Amino acid sequence: MTKLQRVLEYLHAHQSQAVDDLMEFLRIPSVSTEPGHALDMRHAAEWLKVRLMHAGFADARIEETPGGHPVVRASYRADAQAQRRTVVVYGHYDVQPVDPVSAWHHPPFEPTVIDDVLYGRGAADDKGQLFLQLLAAEAWLKATGDIPVNIEFLFEGEEEIGSPHLLAYIESHRQELAGDVAVISDTPMHAPDVPAICYGIRGLAAMEVTVKGPYQDLHSGAFGGTVANPALVLSRLLSSLQDADGRITVPGFYDDVEPVSAFDRQAIERLEFSDAQLQQELQVPKLWGEPGYSTLERMWLRPTLEINGITAGYQGTGQKTIIPGQASAKISCRLVPHQDPHKIQDHIEEWLRSQLPSTVTMDVVKHSGTTMSVTIPVDDPIMAAASAAVQDVFGVAPVLFRRGGSMAIIEWFQTVLHQTPLLLGFTWPNEQFHAPNEHFHLSNFRRGAETIARLWDYYEKAGADTSA
Amino acid sequence: MTKLQRVLEYLHAHQSQAVDDLMEFLRIPSVSTEPGHALDMRHAAEWLKVRLMHAGFADARIEETPGGHPVVRASYRADAQAQRRTVVVYGHYDVQPVDPVSAWHHPPFEPTVIDDVLYGRGAADDKGQLFLQLLAAEAWLKATGDIPVNIEFLFEGEEEIGSPHLLAYIESHRQELAGDVAVISDTPMHAPDVPAICYGIRGLAAMEVTVKGPYQDLHSGAFGGTVANPALVLSRLLSSLQDADGRITVPGFYDDVEPVSAFDRQAIERLEFSDAQLQQELQVPKLWGEPGYSTLERMWLRPTLEINGITAGYQGTGQKTIIPGQASAKISCRLVPHQDPHKIQDHIEEWLRSQLPSTVTMDVVKHSGTTMSVTIPVDDPIMAAASAAVQDVFGVAPVLFRRGGSMAIIEWFQTVLHQTPLLLGFTWPNEQFHAPNEHFHLSNFRRGAETIARLWDYYEKAGADTSA
Repeated sequence: MTKLQRVLEYLHAHQSQAVDDLMEFLRIPSVSTEPGHALDMRHAAEWLKVRLMHAGFADARIEETPGGHPVVRASYRADAQAQRRTVVVYGHYDVQPVDPVSAWHHPPFEPTVIDDVLYGRGAADDKGQLFLQLLAAEAWLKATGDIPVNIEFLFEGEEEIGSPHLLAYIESHRQELAGDVAVISDTPMHAPDVPAICYGIRGLAAMEVTVKGPYQDLHSGAFGGTVANPALVLSRLLSSLQDADGRITVPGFYDDVEPVSAFDRQAIERLEFSDAQLQQELQVPKLWGEPGYSTLERMWLRPTLEINGITAGYQGTGQKTIIPGQASAKISCRLVPHQDPHKIQDHIEEWLRSQLPSTVTMDVVKHSGTTMSVTIPVDDPIMAAASAAVQDVFGVAPVLFRRGGSMAIIEWFQTVLHQTPLLLGFTWPNEQFHAPNEHFHLSNFRRGAETIARLWDYYEKAGADTSA
Repeated sequence: MTKLQRVLEYLHAHQSQAVDDLMEFLRIPSVSTEPGHALDMRHAAEWLKVRLMHAGFADARIEETPGGHPVVRASYRADAQAQRRTVVVYGHYDVQPVDPVSAWHHPPFEPTVIDDVLYGRGAADDKGQLFLQLLAAEAWLKATGDIPVNIEFLFEGEEEIGSPHLLAYIESHRQELAGDVAVISDTPMHAPDVPAICYGIRGLAAMEVTVKGPYQDLHSGAFGGTVANPALVLSRLLSSLQDADGRITVPGFYDDVEPVSAFDRQAIERLEFSDAQLQQELQVPKLWGEPGYSTLERMWLRPTLEINGITAGYQGTGQKTIIPGQASAKISCRLVPHQDPHKIQDHIEEWLRSQLPSTVTMDVVKHSGTTMSVTIPVDDPIMAAASAAVQDVFGVAPVLFRRGGSMAIIEWFQTVLHQTPLLLGFTWPNEQFHAPNEHFHLSNFRRGAETIARLWDYYEKAGADTSA
C-alpha cells in the first residue's frame, strides 16, 4: 500500500467525523462585518486553532491584527534535507451576514444535512472549503507521519470585509510565508460535474453615499413642495451612474479597461453555458447587461456597477407620509485588469458631486476593502499537478475559467510573496454564497479533500521531475 | 358672575389636573399603522370613553368598525325646547409611528414637561388638541350644568392610516350626526403668535411599488453584469416621476388642476412668511420646488409627489456586495381641488409601467386612505364666532390660511353630512407632528380650551341673532 493509499483510507475512515466537525465550526456565527459578532469571531478563531492542534499542527496559533479579527496560523515543515517545496494554504473563517433571516429554510447557524447536502452560513464560503484543506493535510500527517510539501496555513477572519489587515500581516511575515505557490479553495466549480481552476478574478471598489436634506424627517403635507426630497435626489444620482442598457456612464470609468483578449474569449468558448438555464435559475424575466458581450463575458471580463442597498425614510408596514431627512445607498463595482479601485471610487464621487443639486448635501464613505483584478499564469507546475489530481477524483480534467468575484488576497500572493495562486474549489456554482440557504454538496466536500491529498503527491513528484 | 365666567374659572382651577390626564393619555402607544399596537389602540379607546364619562357624558361608548380600530362616541343634548344648534366635535386618538426612536430626546411614550412644553408622541397631533375640546365641554357641564350647543363627539382611531372605516360609519349614522358644523382641532396656528382658521387642505393619494428581479439577493461578483439591478431600476423609475426642478412628469397628473385663485393668492399675501426662516428651521442648504410659485403657494396650493421611503438590499453596517432581489418605494402625493386621488394613483401606475424594462416585474399596492382636497366656505356663522373667541383669548383675530396636509374626514363632513368644518387648532407650526420630539406648548393647550369654551357661547348668541 502506497503512502497515498494510506492517506485516502484515512480520509475515508474519518468522513463522518469530518462532517460533524465542520458542523460544529458552522455553528459559530462568525460574521466579520457586524460589530455585534466580535466575540463569535474570536470563538471561531479559537476553534480553528484547537482543531489544527488536534490535526497534529503543534504550532497552531492565533495572531492578532491591530484592532481587527485575528489570523489563525499553523505550519508543517519536513526535515531541512528533504528539500520540499513550500505552499501557503489560505482560507477564511469569517462569513457573510445572514439577512434576510426569514428567507432561510433552516436557521443559518444551525447546520442541517438533507440528502447529503449541508446547509448553513459558511458551508461553502469558506469554512467548508477551508476545512477540506485542513483534512487533507491531517490525513497525510496521521496516516504517514509526513506531508509531501511544507505547508503554511494562513486562515484569516476578514475576507468578507475586504481583508483590511492581511496585506500588512503578509508584508511583515514575508520570510515565514516564503514559498512557491498559494493554494486557495474559495471558488466554485464551473458546473456540478465540471471542476475548474480559476485563472482570473475581478477587482472591487465599494462605497456608500448619503444625501442629506432637512435636519429630520418632515411631514409631507406640511412641508411637501418646499424642500428637495433626499430619496428622490438619491434616485436621480444613482440613475446617472449607468444607462438603461448597462453601460456605466461615470466619466473615466472605462479609461484603463483593455479589450477582451483572445485567450479569455477562447477559454469561455470552450465552456458549456446556457443563458436560458441561468435565467431560469435566477428567475428573472430576462438576462441583462452591457451590449456587445456574451453573458459570461459580462460576468467575468467586463466591469460592473451595482447598488447593493438603499435605505431612506419609512420602511415599515403601511404608509407614513414623510419627506425623509436623508437617503443612503451602498454602491460597489467589480473591476477588470488595470482598473485602479481608488481611481474608480474617485471617479464615482466626482461624477456624483457634479450631478448634486445645491438643495442637499452629500456624504461619501469609500470603503477600504478595495482590490485589483488579477490574472494568474496557467503554466506553473502547480496547475498540471492540480489537473492530474482532479482527473483522478472527478474523472475529468478541470476547465480553466475566470470569475466575477473578488479576493484581495490573490493580488497580494502575486505582488508581495511572488507566489502563483492556485484557485481550486469544489462547491457547485450558486450554492448560495452570500445569500440565504447557503449549502455545500458533501460528496464534493469529500472529493475536495481527496483531490487536495492527491495534489500534494503530484506536486512533489512534479518538483522531483523538474529538479531532475 | 356669568355662566361663561364660571366655565373659565372651572378650566383655570383644573389646569394642572388636565395636564396630568393628558399625559396619562399620551402614555398609551396608540400607533394605528402598526399591527403590534392593536391592543394599545383598544386601551386608548377605553381610556377616552372612561374620561368622557368622568366629564359627565353618560352615553360615552366605544363603537366597533369592521376589522379596524374603534370609534369613541359621546353626546350632549339640551332639552328639546332649547332649540340649540348641534356641532360635531371630531378628533383622533391614534398617533404616528415613532421611528427613528433614537432621535427622540425623551422616550416618545413617556411624556415630559420642560419649560411648560409637553413632549411626547400625540401631544399635538392629535391627542392634545382632542383633549382640549373635551375639557371645554366638561367645564361648561360641570360649572353650569349645560352647554350652549348640542355636541356629538366623534373620536376615531384611524386618522393616521387614512380613516378607512369612518366614511361608512358616518354614512350609517347620518341622523345621529346631523348638525350645523363640525369642529376640529387638528391643524396648527400660522406662527407662534398668529392663530389661524384653516379654510382648505390638500388631498392625498399614496401607494407602494416593488420592483422584482432575481428570486433572491445575488452575489454581485458571481452575477454582476448578467441581470438588471432592481434597486437601480427603481431609482430610474422614481427619477421619471419628477423633473429636477420639481415639476411632476407623470402624464395626466396636472389635468384637473386649476390656476391659483385670486382669493387664495391674496390670503397668502396677507400672511407674514419668511423663506429664510423656513430654510433655517429645516436646516436645508436651499428651499426647492416647482418654478413659478412662492413657497406658501407650493406648500398649500400646488400638488406634490414625494418618496416617503425606499428599501432595498443590505442596509446594515459596512458592505455586503449583493444584487438585491427586489427594491420598494413608498410614494405619496398631496393633491389640490378637483384632483381625484384614484385617477392620480392610476396615472402613476400607468406611467411607471410604461417605463418598466422587461428585465424585471413590478408590484403596485395603492393605499386605500385617499382623500380629495377640500375648500371650506368662510362666510358660515361659525367662522365669525371662532374669530371672536380667538380675539378674546389671543388678543388678535385669526388669519385665514390653507394647509398642505390632508384629512379625509373633512371631505366627508361636507359631502355626506353637509356641515361646514371649522378647522381651528392651537399648536405651533412645526411642533414635530409625525416626527421625533413632537410637542405642544401648554400655554396654548390652556388657551385652546378657553377659546373653545368661549366659541360655544359666541356661536349660541350668533344663532340667536340670526333667528331674530
